[in-house]
Amino acid sequence: MRLSQLFTKTRKEVPGDEESVNAQLLIRAGFVHKELAGAYSFLPLGLRVLNNIIGIIREEMNAIGGQEVFLSSLQNPELWKKSKRWDDKVVDIWFKTTLKSGGEVGLANTHEEPLTELMKNHVSSYKDLPVFPYQFQTKFRNELRAKGGLLRTREFVMKDLYSFSRSQEEHNEFYEKAKQAYFNVFERVGLKKHTVLTFASGGSFSKYSHEFQTLCSAGEDIIFLCKKCNVAVNREIVKEVNACPECKNTELQEEKAIEVGNIFSLGTRFSEALKLEFTDEKGAKQPVIMGSYGIGPARVMGTIIEVFHDEKGVVWPETISPFALHMVSLEGGEKDAEKLYEEFSKKNVEVLYDDRKEASPGEKLADADLMGIPLRVVASKKTTEQKKVELKKRSEETATLISFGELEKTLGV
Amino acid sequence: MRLSQLFTKTRKEVPGDEESVNAQLLIRAGFVHKELAGAYSFLPLGLRVLNNIIGIIREEMNAIGGQEVFLSSLQNPELWKKSKRWDDKVVDIWFKTTLKSGGEVGLANTHEEPLTELMKNHVSSYKDLPVFPYQFQTKFRNELRAKGGLLRTREFVMKDLYSFSRSQEEHNEFYEKAKQAYFNVFERVGLKKHTVLTFASGGSFSKYSHEFQTLCSAGEDIIFLCKKCNVAVNREIVKEVNACPECKNTELQEEKAIEVGNIFSLGTRFSEALKLEFTDEKGAKQPVIMGSYGIGPARVMGTIIEVFHDEKGVVWPETISPFALHMVSLEGGEKDAEKLYEEFSKKNVEVLYDDRKEASPGEKLADADLMGIPLRVVASKKTTEQKKVELKKRSEETATLISFGELEKTLGV
Repeated sequence: MRLSQLFTKTRKEVPGDEESVNAQLLIRAGFVHKELAGAYSFLPLGLRVLNNIIGIIREEMNAIGGQEVFLSSLQNPELWKKSKRWDDKVVDIWFKTTLKSGGEVGLANTHEEPLTELMKNHVSSYKDLPVFPYQFQTKFRNELRAKGGLLRTREFVMKDLYSFSRSQEEHNEFYEKAKQAYFNVFERVGLKKHTVLTFASGGSFSKYSHEFQTLCSAGEDIIFLCKKCNVAVNREIVKEVNACPECKNTELQEEKAIEVGNIFSLGTRFSEALKLEFTDEKGAKQPVIMGSYGIGPARVMGTIIEVFHDEKGVVWPETISPFALHMVSLEGGEKDAEKLYEEFSKKNVEVLYDDRKEASPGEKLADADLMGIPLRVVASKKTTEQKKVELKKRSEETATLISFGELEKTLGV
Repeated sequence: MRLSQLFTKTRKEVPGDEESVNAQLLIRAGFVHKELAGAYSFLPLGLRVLNNIIGIIREEMNAIGGQEVFLSSLQNPELWKKSKRWDDKVVDIWFKTTLKSGGEVGLANTHEEPLTELMKNHVSSYKDLPVFPYQFQTKFRNELRAKGGLLRTREFVMKDLYSFSRSQEEHNEFYEKAKQAYFNVFERVGLKKHTVLTFASGGSFSKYSHEFQTLCSAGEDIIFLCKKCNVAVNREIVKEVNACPECKNTELQEEKAIEVGNIFSLGTRFSEALKLEFTDEKGAKQPVIMGSYGIGPARVMGTIIEVFHDEKGVVWPETISPFALHMVSLEGGEKDAEKLYEEFSKKNVEVLYDDRKEASPGEKLADADLMGIPLRVVASKKTTEQKKVELKKRSEETATLISFGELEKTLGV
């Protein structure tokens, strides 16, 4: 894409109403816009990053048998009364509103109830199980305080997968698969090294649930890390068991972290409340065993920025970068830049091409740093004279002069 | 995909609370689930159709210079007060709710106000225009009566594009491009033949706006069609000008139709209210000229069913069908079916493979008709003995025996 055509503009000033690094950089780079506290709009470059993250999660969910659905946001109170989660005293983050035709409706903050209810049309026998529907759908949460930019918002797209199994063993087997799929996601988006499996409270149906916590000074969670096992326990658990659940090590290190995902055994909590049953091989009715598995792609995006940035801007991991290459055309390099852009476009290399005539070299290079695409190529009078271009990784300080052929090789085309 | 793995089930019974053909068939085929009146959830096959429609619209919007964004649903009342559209007496379909931290917010029923406001960060000079952001984003509309299944709902994904131009001429030029892009969309989803450009009221800034109306007995709109020009006028316009706006023909035929899209010249209605200005070539401040362009992909989906169905089920156009091929394995044909499924999967042909062991031949064929995939292949003992398979188009009555090679040719692999 030609930067001269992109409608968004960068800005130098840090927005006064944003304390978090992720929101400051995203707004300055023109990736997102703040609508109100806790609600952000995604502009073209930001949406590309979000969709790259969503694409990775989708692949990993499909790989473990996930089937994608898209449930409504508007919620029928009757279902939530059955599970006793309609009352604001029980769930304190509801947004509720009123139908013009009469009656209250809610905006979904999670989707256990409607999904459990709809599965009653599709599950009756043990032959119909196990199944793993998931979606990318907006959740609305009436947080008292939105904070941390994309880290805690009132409206966000969430990937939520729900497992429906016949037995605890079948559930456990999928739970482990989902855990691995989550690690795959965090590996692919670049966060694996910083992310630890964290034991959290399990509710009535299992000892533990698990959070995926990314170590980061901007995190609002506190976890207690066992450096031997690279697992952690959260605040709640550490009060009960002040030791690593795996090696019993009691020397746990307190760390700030961001919760980037969680997986939860729900047992029969919702299937009993909403009467989702199946007939087993002996003809007896059994409640379905459920689990839920969440990742917020925008929170992952915010976390990646918190972990990967410097004073100049974002440093996107390759896999989720809005473009593979940021190509800057400076005076005298226009012809080479144009030629390379045409060639790469034909070969489906995603290039953000800074072809702006009026921006100064300094502005162009500062924008490239701010936007954070992992590879930058500059074509100028100097490089043209040598029949080369200048290549620089966003994560490194030094640029190197390379031939067109070497550039093609770097990009694998 | 193997039908034995798909979690949804079909049903024979027509749902008692649905009068419209589209909702009845979609629910029976397991494509959607009704959450409440006017809110539907999309199940795997339904989501595939919706995404195919969205994919076509996205390509056509990108082709005319659209840049995709994704705005928030939660709305800041202040912006809508400036354009005088916050008051329920003016806009009577608002869903409003309250922030826990205090203050009202709305759920977006359209996005002119927030987009105009955010463009102020990106547009200042004539050099920044024209630009055409668009999105696929949920709209919430508090309709007194939801009706017609997917045709009029309280919550639906909408493609809304907005144009920001420097002059009326520049606006008009884009408006014509958008009109053509809309015809391309309706051509590609199979509705072009049934869809007519319909002149509608233009508001204060232009004589007309335009609706795209699909002729259909299930439609709730009445239009007045000029058979010579294949254009129409809507109810409002016919009262003022009882003649074809193109040939002045006064013999207009009354028809029922479904509005599948609309395009609208907004002039400076929103740019003046929200102060979106640019500096022109002479250094003078000018308000931006705007337009809006909407299509509801789910309404298009519902309309397609209303137009293309028979007593057995849906008849999807190829371009939006959830799969390219519905392959049915009957007794004795399992080996051939399995072999073809493996081969086609490798070649990226999208096959819904009915490998169910317990469904009867009658059930399998009835499900194929209900689900409506345009091509059906049956492998049975009879076809295997002849080293052939049976091919039938969903839109035709007769099946033909063809060789594997001929099938590959039909599928273009």
